[in-house]
Amino acid sequence: MTEVDAAWLPPQAWRAIGSRRIRVTGSGLLVDTVAGELRQACGRFGGEVVRGTGGEPCDLEMSLGGDESLGPEGYALTGDDTRTVLRAARPHGLLHGMFHLLRSDDAPVHGTFRPAVPRRMLDHWDNVDVHPVMGQVERGYAGGSLFWRAGRPRRDLARVTAYARLLASCGINAVALNNVNVHATEAHLLTDRLGEVAELAGVFRRYGIRTHLSVSFAAPVLHGLDTADPLDVWVRRWWEKTTAQVYATIPDFGGYLVKADSEGRPGPFTYGRSHADGANLLADVLAAHGGVVHWRAFVYNHRQDWRDRGVDRARAAFDHFTPHDGAFRDNVVLQVKHGPMDFQAREPASPLIVAMPETQVGVEFQVTQEYTGQQRHVCYLAPMWSALLTGTHGPALAEVAAEFVAVANVGDDPFWTGHPLAQANLYAFGRLAWDPELDPAAVLDEWAGLTFPRAPRRLFDALHAIMDDSWRTYERYTAPLGVGFMVRPGHHYGPDVDGYEYTPWGTYHHADRDGVGVDRTVASGTGCAGLYPKPWAQVYESPDECPDELALFFHHLPYEHVLRSGVTVIQHIYDTHFAGADEAAGMRERWAEMAGTVPAAKFERVRELLAEQVRSAREWRDQINAYFFRKSGVPDAKGRQIY
Amino acid sequence: MTEVDAAWLPPQAWRAIGSRRIRVTGSGLLVDTVAGELRQACGRFGGEVVRGTGGEPCDLEMSLGGDESLGPEGYALTGDDTRTVLRAARPHGLLHGMFHLLRSDDAPVHGTFRPAVPRRMLDHWDNVDVHPVMGQVERGYAGGSLFWRAGRPRRDLARVTAYARLLASCGINAVALNNVNVHATEAHLLTDRLGEVAELAGVFRRYGIRTHLSVSFAAPVLHGLDTADPLDVWVRRWWEKTTAQVYATIPDFGGYLVKADSEGRPGPFTYGRSHADGANLLADVLAAHGGVVHWRAFVYNHRQDWRDRGVDRARAAFDHFTPHDGAFRDNVVLQVKHGPMDFQAREPASPLIVAMPETQVGVEFQVTQEYTGQQRHVCYLAPMWSALLTGTHGPALAEVAAEFVAVANVGDDPFWTGHPLAQANLYAFGRLAWDPELDPAAVLDEWAGLTFPRAPRRLFDALHAIMDDSWRTYERYTAPLGVGFMVRPGHHYGPDVDGYEYTPWGTYHHADRDGVGVDRTVASGTGCAGLYPKPWAQVYESPDECPDELALFFHHLPYEHVLRSGVTVIQHIYDTHFAGADEAAGMRERWAEMAGTVPAAKFERVRELLAEQVRSAREWRDQINAYFFRKSGVPDAKGRQIY
Repeated sequence: MTEVDAAWLPPQAWRAIGSRRIRVTGSGLLVDTVAGELRQACGRFGGEVVRGTGGEPCDLEMSLGGDESLGPEGYALTGDDTRTVLRAARPHGLLHGMFHLLRSDDAPVHGTFRPAVPRRMLDHWDNVDVHPVMGQVERGYAGGSLFWRAGRPRRDLARVTAYARLLASCGINAVALNNVNVHATEAHLLTDRLGEVAELAGVFRRYGIRTHLSVSFAAPVLHGLDTADPLDVWVRRWWEKTTAQVYATIPDFGGYLVKADSEGRPGPFTYGRSHADGANLLADVLAAHGGVVHWRAFVYNHRQDWRDRGVDRARAAFDHFTPHDGAFRDNVVLQVKHGPMDFQAREPASPLIVAMPETQVGVEFQVTQEYTGQQRHVCYLAPMWSALLTGTHGPALAEVAAEFVAVANVGDDPFWTGHPLAQANLYAFGRLAWDPELDPAAVLDEWAGLTFPRAPRRLFDALHAIMDDSWRTYERYTAPLGVGFMVRPGHHYGPDVDGYEYTPWGTYHHADRDGVGVDRTVASGTGCAGLYPKPWAQVYESPDECPDELALFFHHLPYEHVLRSGVTVIQHIYDTHFAGADEAAGMRERWAEMAGTVPAAKFERVRELLAEQVRSAREWRDQINAYFFRKSGVPDAKGRQIY
Repeated sequence: MTEVDAAWLPPQAWRAIGSRRIRVTGSGLLVDTVAGELRQACGRFGGEVVRGTGGEPCDLEMSLGGDESLGPEGYALTGDDTRTVLRAARPHGLLHGMFHLLRSDDAPVHGTFRPAVPRRMLDHWDNVDVHPVMGQVERGYAGGSLFWRAGRPRRDLARVTAYARLLASCGINAVALNNVNVHATEAHLLTDRLGEVAELAGVFRRYGIRTHLSVSFAAPVLHGLDTADPLDVWVRRWWEKTTAQVYATIPDFGGYLVKADSEGRPGPFTYGRSHADGANLLADVLAAHGGVVHWRAFVYNHRQDWRDRGVDRARAAFDHFTPHDGAFRDNVVLQVKHGPMDFQAREPASPLIVAMPETQVGVEFQVTQEYTGQQRHVCYLAPMWSALLTGTHGPALAEVAAEFVAVANVGDDPFWTGHPLAQANLYAFGRLAWDPELDPAAVLDEWAGLTFPRAPRRLFDALHAIMDDSWRTYERYTAPLGVGFMVRPGHHYGPDVDGYEYTPWGTYHHADRDGVGVDRTVASGTGCAGLYPKPWAQVYESPDECPDELALFFHHLPYEHVLRSGVTVIQHIYDTHFAGADEAAGMRERWAEMAGTVPAAKFERVRELLAEQVRSAREWRDQINAYFFRKSGVPDAKGRQIY
């Protein structure tokens, strides 16, 4: 077994802190965690940790008792050249402040810091057993689960501790441990296998992270009742009893995550009840213990008829949930994927997210790269998330989100994330969830600085060159202009332009010999464009105003249609695909020059994966170009090779 | 567990025989089998079996001592209205003769009967373990294996006996028990799990069927040697020792079946040796015991570049093997799929089969309906095989084949074959292998008469209406004009026109906005047409002479090209797809009228499957038509709905 990579918390990253005299005052589990971390650093680098008040002033003073307005996780940094003072109202603030100092190295930014949202959560799509088709971690590209192996708990608590520490250091404060598709075995985590959950929760707790569970809406039936009807009194009692037991075992348990009436999962529809009925049952039961329900809005007809162009999956969640705005309890978080489809490399923001003013909405991102290269391709996702959060091409999601959730990208791989550079996505999600205004390139600086302490400048230059624009590079060589879903069905890796075109999944491009794209206008299409607030409804409705990035998401356009960029749709397809594949080749060249600047195993892993990315990008380029050339008959204006 | 269906040997089918006085003379295992079968029938229907010579003349006299020219399996039937005489040179001939009388009921055809080829074999693609993706029986659509369950032998020898009896009754005399893709577990059937094979061989032996095994070419390596080089002396010794042990345990063992250097399987190429080197090693070792090697010719580049139109999978087996004609030992059977691709609903005959005059060639058919509806669609395959055997659109394979082999379609399903009507394919393969001149409709009569004894005439009429043309119906609603491979990759069920178009498997249609089909001419294409003997090379080369059925197999044709039928390619596509789907709907209607004429469970199973066939046929119709309409832009001349 290869040694586990330290990711962005290698011992050397603690040098600046660890060489100081530090006072930590206050008590409690998290203060102990902070003191323990610092003591370890000081032990390595010659500093010293003092507990309690009084005595000589220290280089770094950390204490509770800050302004209550800092809230449960905020902190204030003051001081001068010789001395830093970190104050927080609650221990959790000290933990965040400590990691702030770590990433700021010896130049801390003074000021007051609070998270944008109170909960920043990672969902793990881990199964206890290995699923014959989906593997153990559904949509996981980094090996097996950190929590279970061969149907039993791993009990590698050292690794879970290292993981909790990584999460805490970038601001995550909640995890769901298991797959939202809750299979029979995993349904027992809530009941007779609760001890396994408690053990893991104990580890996460030490880093200020609350543990949640995915539960099956049919859990009462799986445990012997003859119904899971949310209005049935015995069902309610079952949930009350079960939940009381959960909290007796895990007093700070976070709550339940539910994928109901979605892709075949059970849900309230089975009993003629609404999603509000379903979510509120669980919310009421959890409220007594301070827990929350995450209720996923990923509800659509996955038995759609491709012949029927009037049905639009991009409308489905909006149509299902907006009638229920205001009907959900306060401790229900409606968890909505960032786009209206399914984590494509380019989608508009989900119109549902900005249409639920009376509902707590959690925005769900996908750190695991299901549709963005499966951690075999470099694809730094922070620029995509940032654009959605700040509203580059649509409503700014950060303005309405009550919290942020993401699907994790980790596993028992020695590098945690398969591709070592994919660690940056995990880090960046945590940081953007804390502060959506952060610049993705600055977050990359933080991550790179921590991950490769005292590496030569040229490594950081290379990481920026390779990663900063890597999402747009990936977009260039895959599905064009926001149309999405040109992947191989099932596993979703590599191109298959028509792979989903005639399936029941609702994911079409409608390409014919004249044009391509989905007409989602109000005037002549599915009306999806009209679901957005002003000015976006008008912008998306107009083929001339719609951002090129979303042109084929909202419009069926002739190949000769001239985009806002001044290029035709067909020539844009050719140009971006040649460019994207060339950029991938450039990444590989740039990385090859970095030999010796990073540990050999990490260098080699990245090198191998970049070779696959170059191969795959060429395959995408040639298939997409061939497909549209064969259909359109329009030759490339620049005379390049199309097959 | 539902009772196992009697297929075409229900007790009532024995009425005519079982009510007679029968004398059986001769001795030995097979004579005992014959006598036992007859005694059982007479026990039920009042007849009587007499062993030995002398005494009163019987209604049916069966004895050995016929003309030696009848060969090991032939028989002669003589007699008059009151008395039938069956004579054979060997006991096996008596067995075949008995089943002849059974299917002829009380109107036996007199004459002399010998099989066209000495070996008529069924290959079972059964795994001992359940493979996570392929299931237990690879390309099996009838449940699990008859031989193994959950990694262990089933030991349901009553069922295997019933199965052996079914096979013997239609003329099969050899089986291979396990998958040609030999996985690690199955490699041990040859060695430490040989006892399981011996037990099964004992059952098949009682019905004149010899048992063969699929072996891995890498078996020596799997058993501890460091090479499997066919010219290595230790490898030869390993095979000698192993084979001697096999024959010590199973004295009439048939031999080895090998898929080498094919789709990732190990083979002699690994060691820089030829297929002749590989096959001859095993042949020499087996020759000492009277065994044979079946060496599959399914060798092609499955890592092909779709961009390279110069590489043609349809040429691969020809190019690999014809240089070795004459180099194989006499006890090597080169086992060649009937077409040059892979069991598509329409292919020309494989050019390799008729290009190896100095080699024993076994023609391989696929009774399991991998590409022909997977035993959810009615698709009676005998007309396809008959056309290939007798040379309707190409060289007559029956004229050159040394034997016939087929991939079995059975499993532990109560109806044996999933679709009850798919039993007819198994029966028909055996019958055509015995006599390739048989009329498929007459074989259907035999099968139906045995399967549904004393059913009303209208059932037989309906079976003919549903089944006689069902292969062409299936062809009509699937890939057009011989182009093949428009199935979903991997599982191969249902349409996906571009599913294989950009893959490395070598299975393309090259459709663009102007036309479709693969140019395999000598003049401008891959030259595959030129691999055939006269007159077929010229016929296939010419777009005007090439049979419409193979038009797109050999030619890339404009959509407006007028076929020999007088219809354009595009209109042919539309017309056949509407017609095929309508015909499937007609089958369902016709079957619905048969309620009460067949056992309820069988009726219901067929009814359910026909509903799926109708749904699937419509899906094929709409996807194929939509695909070509979107590409060609040519409207249907008859104005029907295309999406």
